[in-house]
Order: sequence, then C-alpha cells, then structure tokens
Amino acid sequence: MIMIEMPNKAHAQALYEQIKNQTQTVPVFYNGATKVGLADEAGLVGVDLPVEAVVRHDVPGALQVSRIWQAEDTIIKTEHSQIGGSHFTLVAGPDSIESQQHVMKMAQAVKDAGGTILRGGSFKPRTNPYSFQGYGAAGLKAHRQAADAYELDMMTEIMDARDFDLIDQYTDIFQVGARNMQNFSLLKCLGEQKKPVGLKRGMSASIDDLLNAAEYIVAAGNPNVFLIERGIRTFDNQYTRNTLDVGAVPVLQKYSHLPVLVDPSHAAGVSEFVAPLARAGVAAGAQGLMIEIHDNPKAALVDGAQALTPAELEKLMQQVQAISAILEENES
Amino acid sequence: MIMIEMPNKAHAQALYEQIKNQTQTVPVFYNGATKVGLADEAGLVGVDLPVEAVVRHDVPGALQVSRIWQAEDTIIKTEHSQIGGSHFTLVAGPDSIESQQHVMKMAQAVKDAGGTILRGGSFKPRTNPYSFQGYGAAGLKAHRQAADAYELDMMTEIMDARDFDLIDQYTDIFQVGARNMQNFSLLKCLGEQKKPVGLKRGMSASIDDLLNAAEYIVAAGNPNVFLIERGIRTFDNQYTRNTLDVGAVPVLQKYSHLPVLVDPSHAAGVSEFVAPLARAGVAAGAQGLMIEIHDNPKAALVDGAQALTPAELEKLMQQVQAISAILEENES
Amino acid sequence: MIMIEMPNKAHAQALYEQIKNQTQTVPVFYNGATKVGLADEAGLVGVDLPVEAVVRHDVPGALQVSRIWQAEDTIIKTEHSQIGGSHFTLVAGPDSIESQQHVMKMAQAVKDAGGTILRGGSFKPRTNPYSFQGYGAAGLKAHRQAADAYELDMMTEIMDARDFDLIDQYTDIFQVGARNMQNFSLLKCLGEQKKPVGLKRGMSASIDDLLNAAEYIVAAGNPNVFLIERGIRTFDNQYTRNTLDVGAVPVLQKYSHLPVLVDPSHAAGVSEFVAPLARAGVAAGAQGLMIEIHDNPKAALVDGAQALTPAELEKLMQQVQAISAILEENES
Amino acid sequence: MIMIEMPNKAHAQALYEQIKNQTQTVPVFYNGATKVGLADEAGLVGVDLPVEAVVRHDVPGALQVSRIWQAEDTIIKTEHSQIGGSHFTLVAGPDSIESQQHVMKMAQAVKDAGGTILRGGSFKPRTNPYSFQGYGAAGLKAHRQAADAYELDMMTEIMDARDFDLIDQYTDIFQVGARNMQNFSLLKCLGEQKKPVGLKRGMSASIDDLLNAAEYIVAAGNPNVFLIERGIRTFDNQYTRNTLDVGAVPVLQKYSHLPVLVDPSHAAGVSEFVAPLARAGVAAGAQGLMIEIHDNPKAALVDGAQALTPAELEKLMQQVQAISAILEENES
Repeated sequence: MIMIEMPNKAHAQALYEQIKNQTQTVPVFYNGATKVGLADEAGLVGVDLPVEAVVRHDVPGALQVSRIWQAEDTIIKTEHSQIGGSHFTLVAGPDSIESQQHVMKMAQAVKDAGGTILRGGSFKPRTNPYSFQGYGAAGLKAHRQAADAYELDMMTEIMDARDFDLIDQYTDIFQVGARNMQNFSLLKCLGEQKKPVGLKRGMSASIDDLLNAAEYIVAAGNPNVFLIERGIRTFDNQYTRNTLDVGAVPVLQKYSHLPVLVDPSHAAGVSEFVAPLARAGVAAGAQGLMIEIHDNPKAALVDGAQALTPAELEKLMQQVQAISAILEENES
Repeated sequence: MIMIEMPNKAHAQALYEQIKNQTQTVPVFYNGATKVGLADEAGLVGVDLPVEAVVRHDVPGALQVSRIWQAEDTIIKTEHSQIGGSHFTLVAGPDSIESQQHVMKMAQAVKDAGGTILRGGSFKPRTNPYSFQGYGAAGLKAHRQAADAYELDMMTEIMDARDFDLIDQYTDIFQVGARNMQNFSLLKCLGEQKKPVGLKRGMSASIDDLLNAAEYIVAAGNPNVFLIERGIRTFDNQYTRNTLDVGAVPVLQKYSHLPVLVDPSHAAGVSEFVAPLARAGVAAGAQGLMIEIHDNPKAALVDGAQALTPAELEKLMQQVQAISAILEENES
Repeated sequence: MIMIEMPNKAHAQALYEQIKNQTQTVPVFYNGATKVGLADEAGLVGVDLPVEAVVRHDVPGALQVSRIWQAEDTIIKTEHSQIGGSHFTLVAGPDSIESQQHVMKMAQAVKDAGGTILRGGSFKPRTNPYSFQGYGAAGLKAHRQAADAYELDMMTEIMDARDFDLIDQYTDIFQVGARNMQNFSLLKCLGEQKKPVGLKRGMSASIDDLLNAAEYIVAAGNPNVFLIERGIRTFDNQYTRNTLDVGAVPVLQKYSHLPVLVDPSHAAGVSEFVAPLARAGVAAGAQGLMIEIHDNPKAALVDGAQALTPAELEKLMQQVQAISAILEENES
Repeated sequence: MIMIEMPNKAHAQALYEQIKNQTQTVPVFYNGATKVGLADEAGLVGVDLPVEAVVRHDVPGALQVSRIWQAEDTIIKTEHSQIGGSHFTLVAGPDSIESQQHVMKMAQAVKDAGGTILRGGSFKPRTNPYSFQGYGAAGLKAHRQAADAYELDMMTEIMDARDFDLIDQYTDIFQVGARNMQNFSLLKCLGEQKKPVGLKRGMSASIDDLLNAAEYIVAAGNPNVFLIERGIRTFDNQYTRNTLDVGAVPVLQKYSHLPVLVDPSHAAGVSEFVAPLARAGVAAGAQGLMIEIHDNPKAALVDGAQALTPAELEKLMQQVQAISAILEENES
C-alpha cells in the first residue's frame, strides 16, 4: 500500500484523477484533502509525479481506516446517536428478540439507562445447529417497533448477504458478529451501502485482522464503521467465556480513527463480571459499550447467564458516566 | 441432545415416525438402524416410550457426526477418490488458479504424485481487501478442464452462498475455509445438496466447534463431510504461520466418524516445514493431506512461500506412503 | 481437598487436634474459627465425626486462599502500607536499581504520587543470559536507603531460595516474578517466613494455577500473600507485550480473599498504553497498582520503553484515585 | 550480540584473547574454530579489527546454541546413550519413583523397548501443594540402582539449585521441567557442571525463549543440553492436556544444533493419544522420545492417565523405529 501526500488539494485531486484514468486494476483512493492512496506500485507506472513536492509513505494494508489517512476521529451520526469522538454511546438490548412485548420492555430499560441504540438478534449465529436461531422477519418487525416507540436506533446482526434486503428494510445499524468478521462477501455487501456497521472482533483476530476487515467495508464505499472489542480466545476460559483484551482499545484508537466500543457481556459470559469489564473498557477509553440485558435472565432464550437486569444496567451506567467524566476532564 | 437406542430397527423407525409426527419444532433424526436422536426433551412430550427396552443417552450437540451415532467410519466416494476409512487421499494443487496453462501443469504434478483431487482457489479469502481475490468464473473453468484432462476430482473454495450456483456448475467438492467455518448460512447451503464438503478448522475453533460446524452440514441433509486440520492460532507464530494441532487428528477420529485430513501448507506457512508437518499428520493417523504446490513458488500469485514444488511433493508422497503402510500394518 | 465445618469453634479445634494427632502424612489445617481442612480422605480414617453436626465440602486444592475458607478480605499490614480490603496501594519504582542517586530520586517520585511501596530489581530475570542481571547486593543496599529516606516499604524480586538470607536483610516485601510463579521450592521458602509476598501471575498460568501457587506459600505458614495480574501470553502481542487479563481481577476477588493488584507496565510493554491499562485495572476493582517509572526512560537499563515518567505517574494517580472513589461510592 | 568470523583459527583465537583481556564486563566466547562472539558492541572498543578480513554478524541473543555458531549437530555422549545427530534416543520410565521394586520393573521395560535412559521423578513439581511431591533421596537411590541393574542412564528432575549436591550424587542426566524453564538460577547452576541437561520447553515459551534458556546453560560452561518439546498451552485443552507443537521440532533443528526430543505423554495427558503424538514427533524429525510408562496406570502415584504400559511402549517403538528408518533413507 502506498500513500502519497501532495502539497495541496488541487495537486492531490489531479494526481488521483491521473492514476484512476490510467489503471483499470489497481484500487486508488482520495481522502478529500491532500492524500492519495493506491494498493500497488503498478498504479504509478507512467504517472508523472512532481518528485520534489511529494511525501511518499509505505503503509500497512488497512490504509483508509488508519490515522495516517485521516487524523481526526470518525464520528458516525444516526437519527438518535453520535458514535465516536468524545461521544459516549450505549448500545443495549436483549441477546435475541423474544417477543413484541419483551423487546418493548427492554427498549424502555435501554432508554432509561441513557442508551440510544437498541440491539437484539433475529438471526442468531449459534454454535450448534439445533439451538434456537432467532425469529427472523417477525423479530425484526418487533425490534423496529420497539426502537421507534422509544426513539432509539435499531441495531441487529446480519449473517448472510442474502438476508440484506430483508434486514435493510428494518434496521438502522448492521452488526457483524465475531464469527463473520472475515466473511469478506458480507463485508463487501455492507460496504456497498451507507448504514453504519458495528464490526465485532473475531475470537482470534489480531488488531491488523480487525482493521483489514474494517477496510473491506470502507474500501467498498461505506466509511461508517465502528469497532467492537468483545474478548478473545485464550487458554484462560474457566471463569470467563473469553478474555477481554482491554489493551486493544487504546491500541485501536492510536492506529485508527474509527470509534471503538467494548462488549463486556460476551467477554464475561457471566453477568457478575459484566460490570467490572464494562468499567474497565470505559476506563481504557472505549467510546461506548454494547451490553445484553434481560428482565428475567434465567428465562432468556439465548445467553441469559450474561445478561444484566435493567436495574443493574442503570447502576452500571452511573459508574460508567462518572468514569467517562474523569477521563474527559484529564483530556482538557 | 438426546439419543435413544431401541432394541431393533422396527422399533426405532416407529419411534422416529411418532416423534416426527408429533413435533413441528424439535429436530429429530434417525440413523437408519436402531438410533433416534432429537434436539430437545420437548420432542418427547406425549411420546409413548417402552421404558424397559430403551437406552437413553444425553449426548453433546454434534450428534450425527459422532461415533455414538455411527460407529463405523464415513467413507466418501467421488468419481476419482475414496475419502475416509483406511483410504489415503492426496488433495493438491496451486493456492489460486493462475491460468489455464498453469493449472494444467499443476494437475499433471498432482496426478504424478498419486493425488486424486485437484485443489485451487478462484474465490480467495484475503485478509486485505486490495489483495488479489481470484479469477472467479474464468478460474473455475480452467480448473475444471485441468481436472478433467487428468481424471482428478475438482475441489474449490466457496465463500458466499450467493456463489453456489456458479461454483456448483464446475466443482466436484466444495471447500469451506477456516475463516468461514462458522458462517452458518454457508454451512446450511452446503448441507442442502449432496456434493462432498471439505471443512477446514477455524483458527481458534475448538474440537467441539468444528464438530458442531460439521453437524450443521449433516443436519441439513448432506452426510459427505470431511474435516481438515490446518493449524490453530497460538502465541507461537514467529517461525511458522500457525501451530499444527496434530493431536486433533486422533481426537477427532475418536469422537467422530468423519474423515480427517491435514493441511500442512497453511500450518507451516513456509515450504521447508511443510514436509515434516505432513509426515507428522500422517503418522498421527490423518486419512489424507491437502497440500499447495507451485512449479515456481516465487512467482505464485498467492502464498508462494508455502508451496512445494512438484518434485518436493513427489518425494514427500513416497515418505508419506511408507509411513501410512507402517500404521496399517500395526492395525492388522 | 476436604473442608469440614463444625457447629462451633471448640468442636472444630478438637477435630483439628484429633486429625493432627492421628495422621503423620496428610496436611491438615484449622482456620481459627469453625473450619478444618485436610488434603485427603485418608486423614479421616479412624476419626470420630459427629455426623449430624457437620457440613462437609469437597473443595478445590487451593483451600486456604479461598473465600470458602475465609470469607473476609485479607488485609496485609506493613510499616507504611495496608494492602487489601478497601485500601488502595501504589507500588512503584524503577525496573532495576541503577544507582544510589537514581533510586533516591525515584523514591521521591513514588512518595509524591501517593505510593507507599518502592519497587526495584537488584536480581533481574532476563530472557537472555548476556543481558544486565541487576546489581545484586549493592542494589539492595541503595534500595533500602531510598525506601528509608522516604518512609516507604521496600519490595524486590527474589529468584532463588539461595538468595533468601541476603535479600531478607534488606527488603520488607518479596516479589515472585511471573517466570518463577511455579518455582515451588521458592514458594515454600517464602512460606516459611512472615514477610509479605507479592506473587505475579505466570504468563500462561490459569486462575487455578495462580491460586495454587499462593496456596504453597500459605500452606507453608505465611498468610501474607497478594496477587499481581501482569498480562498473559496470547496470540495478540504485536502492539502490546502481553494481554492484560482484566477479568481476572473480579474473578480472583470472588474466589479468593487475597488482595489483587495489577501491573500495567509489563502488560503494556509500551509506556503510552500503561495509563489506560492502569485505569482499566482499577475500574475492574484492583486493590492496587504496580508501576514502573523512570525519569529518563530512554536511558533506563531495563525495559525503559514501558516506564512512566514521575509526571505521568502523578497524573495517572489522580485519575485512578477518582475512579477508585466512584467504585467505593457505589459499594456503600 | 555480535559474531565475528575471522579468516582462520589463529586470527580468531588472537582476537578472542584481545577482547577478553580488554573487557571485564562483556561476555565473550570462542567457538574453537574461526568464530568469536560477544554480547555487546562495548567489548570492541579499542580492539584492533583487521577490517578487510572480517565478517561481522548481528545475531540473536542465543548465539552459542545457534547453527550460526556451530553448523554441525551437537551429539551428547553418556555411558549408555548418544543423543543428537542421526541417533535416536528413547527416554522412558515412571512419572515418579514409587518403590525399589517398581522402578526395577520399569527399568526392565525400558530396556526391553530399546531405551537407554531411565527417567523418573523423586522431586515432583506439583501444581497443588498437598499433592504427592516425590520420595526425595530414597527415590533417587532406588532409581540409581534400577538404572545400574539394567545398564541405563539415569535422568531425573531438579527443581531447586539447593538440591544439586544431593541429586548430583545419583543422576547421570538432569531434567529441567517446563515450569522451571526460566528459573535462571537453576539454569546457571546446571551450566557450571558438565552432566547433560534435558531442558523442557515452558508451557508458553516461544522458540526464542527456549533457545535463550538453553543459552544460559551453555554460556555458563556446559554444552551438553538437549531440548524437549512437551506441548504448549493453547485455547484447545478439552481433549488433550496441551497442544503438541510438532512444528517446533524442525524449527528448532533449523536454528539450533542441539538435539530435540519430544515428550508425547505430557502433551497428550491421556494414554490413548500418546502413541499418535509420539509417531508424529518422530515423523517430524525428533531425535528421540521421552515417554512415561507404568505397569498399572490406574495405580500410579502421579499422572497415571497418561502412562503407557510396557506392552504399549514396545509396540510403539516398533512403529517409531520404522518411521525413523524411512526418514533416514530419504536423507541419504
């Protein structure tokens, strides 16, 4: 990957046009200011580069999501939320959409706790084929109504590009799950539209793998991507389901301009450890949380063990906002 | 998951019909002999079980791929190959289909080394979006011609259920890559047809995860699945790309009746370590190997560093066959 | 491991004496209240147990460090510090003792930041045999003087039981490093005296491994142990040296009464990520931090890249104290 | 680390003497031929280097164990064994020495299977402090007698430098366990004598960590070190205790001249998987095996689950020798 920094915008734009016209096969990008990126040396063959005026960088593959390409934080705006920058975003909701009535109740809890995005699965990726796989279209519909009723954004998982048209009718934000982080067809499909995408880190995905996955979406045309750290798979999974890689938060924020959220629910796998992990994520600088809730965890259709009750969520949010305030103070 | 073993076939079949007629929602299976499996206790409500004549097991989720369900090895038969049981199968070919001429040459090398399946990618899962992604339909066509010319089965990767119709026109065997091992939509799609599926273990997939992924395909109706151990992600990746989990071979063979192959190429990531890993896999009992070759590794479009030359493959196959013979001897 | 809970203290004590008198080989323990623990069933042979009055538990091996054995938090008191319970402890200092003058300066920085324990290595465990291994006795002496000058406790690493007499002349608190966490001879040696021991988690030690290592010290007679989470080894070490397992903090606190500190310096390996990890650890409930500092990190003899400057430490401590206050508030 | 290659032996020796005389602090080494190594640039200050005649390499820290320093294989000779090069060595015996009579029986089994080294623990590193820790001196004595009776070398674990004098009275070969691989004091202690040391790889030790640990022993003066791969800790430990890193065998052999053995017993943790892992290790090129045996595994004091019976060992050795022969054939 090569990035060329031109002395001014006009030069950059001209260079971009020149490369683009000349090559059919090498992807080339323009950042809207002074930078032009291209995937391969080959794109420069025959291009007239005013050498003295140029700074050339050899950069890692995930260029467009990097700070090198864009120094300032990406801030994603939806009807009810601002994700990234100094904003703090709470995404919460049930693991799966269970019923019209239930998701409505959960939506109220999210609203009460200060959340702006209602999450919930209608297409569930389950390890075992005989496990409950979600209510599909009926779930989406109920989810949408609850989001509307409480003026929240709707966020739900897509597992298959073939489901895009159906889910797109309902959702505001697409979620890509850990198991699909390198489902490149799905990433491209979500890159060809503009709704925000919450991209969860794969269980054994490196930082670079995650950034490259995000780059797939951005390279296909959709800059509205936020990253979600949800725990990685390590030797240590006796007491928690995964190991929350809290260090990934500042690392991702250093190298990328995309917003970084933490999902403490899947990292913990047990509700009593969700709050400490959530606080840790925010204290490390996460720009938001994604948390599973249930009013009666024992009766939840999926992953009840890790769900917070609405009351627990509210208490947690008070702590989290206080921690967030401390960090902001020190920034200024 | 519950498995019920009936005293004879007639009883088992009757029980299966009874449960099936009674429940709309609980998946229920019959193994063709004396065993009936069902996903949930709920399927037994109202069913008349002759208690004294019944053995009931609570089994892990991946029932149909387990030895509990089927004691004898699955043997998959294709036009040119038998995979599983005491058969040894060599799958080889270039990482990606590069040209008509090149894949033809590689096909000859596979044939010469005793291989029966020609592998090659026309849809390539690449970490970085700007990397070469395969030649698509043109690649498939060239791949098919080469397989036919040398009387080999064709095996190629599918990354997206939307590509099924296209790839299905050409291939004999579908490959599911490590990154898609839990792309459940894709697994279901491949379960709804009968061509064999080579399922690669995900980078951080446990044994149970892999068996559950295979169960997705079998539960959807396709029993022709073989498993491929290709190295897992550990802290130790400085000198090899992944850590070949050679112990997974006997473990999988103990708990499942599906054939188990080893892919030493992706485990090693460096050609000089491919042969030792291949030998290790066979010595551990693998029923086949899947190996990447290239006549000019430095010029390969993808992953040249890990490709064996045709001559290296041939030498390796001699060792491997000798090791295989030693194991067989001791079995008898 | 068996634990027997007696109806009252007198009965428990009597049972303890009875078992102790009867067995020469089975370790048996009394918690000073109503509980008696013994390592093996064999210890109960011939013992007269008033069955109706007894609650018997089969517990994991690490009994004495568990909450089952002791419900309330262990609080370790030294001349200048209280470690555990609701106390917050800052341990800081240079990675290695470099000179009299330098450690004096670092001691002042620790004091200024609110620390009560001055850490520093005079015997350094180095991966490579030719790396600087510490100044030994001379380092200990300088370390002691600096601790005294600023009224701090001294804490230093011991790597070999043969060094015990020497180090014991100087230090207030012994540190056991990650690489020696299962050096059982060393653990026993430190269990046979009463000075506090800071026990770092091994790089691939599970929670149970760590608790068992602590149990070695306690079983040998020294209850003054505190645990230090310092990052584990995972596949993800490109941008940070280790993965801070922040979830281990609440897990350890749930299952054990021992104090839990976090060492963000070795987890991060890079100074810019130390503060986020430190804040995360405290937000997860850690009862203290252990941090490496240096006034001129680039000139540090060991691990300069991960050292905070005194100014950075002071800023961090302000954030950390504020976070700590938030947690305390919510407890009450 | 710097290595200087001189045009001939006389020059090399002269350079070595010159550097040695000049520096008090920088470790400097001579390989007996044309190579001089030194730990630090500082050792060259004031040294008169005939520039034109010199090849200078910047090499990793573990110089003396590397192929760069010594191209040909190290072969360790003991009374009954040759370890390394094209020799194949079988080390076998009980996990712990249980009784005079028992170790005698095991020695016979080792002899019968073609083994030359009798292993067995009298000082056992146990995760839990209350587990059986070995019979100490009495065990050593019985072990020695059995080794003598069957003309085998004796190999036993040392956990603490303070035990050196005692163990040294009995054993021919010292074993350093995985948990002590970075017990640097112990490594130095074993480097200051000449008996061979079998160094087991730590559970989360990288290849470089292992080579550096070996370098500690060699740098202290003892070149008789052999390496033992015994499985690493990964996320995958449900069916086997550890993950045998079979790829480490050829990697270590490429970069180091030290012999490499495989311990399939601790990797498997379950006897039925020991033979496949042993065969895999040998097929990957291991120069020997270290295997635990017991005539009545269920009654073993330690780790019976992973012990082979004498009959199983004998059958395995036949397979292993046949595999070994295949590899040798192809070498010639």
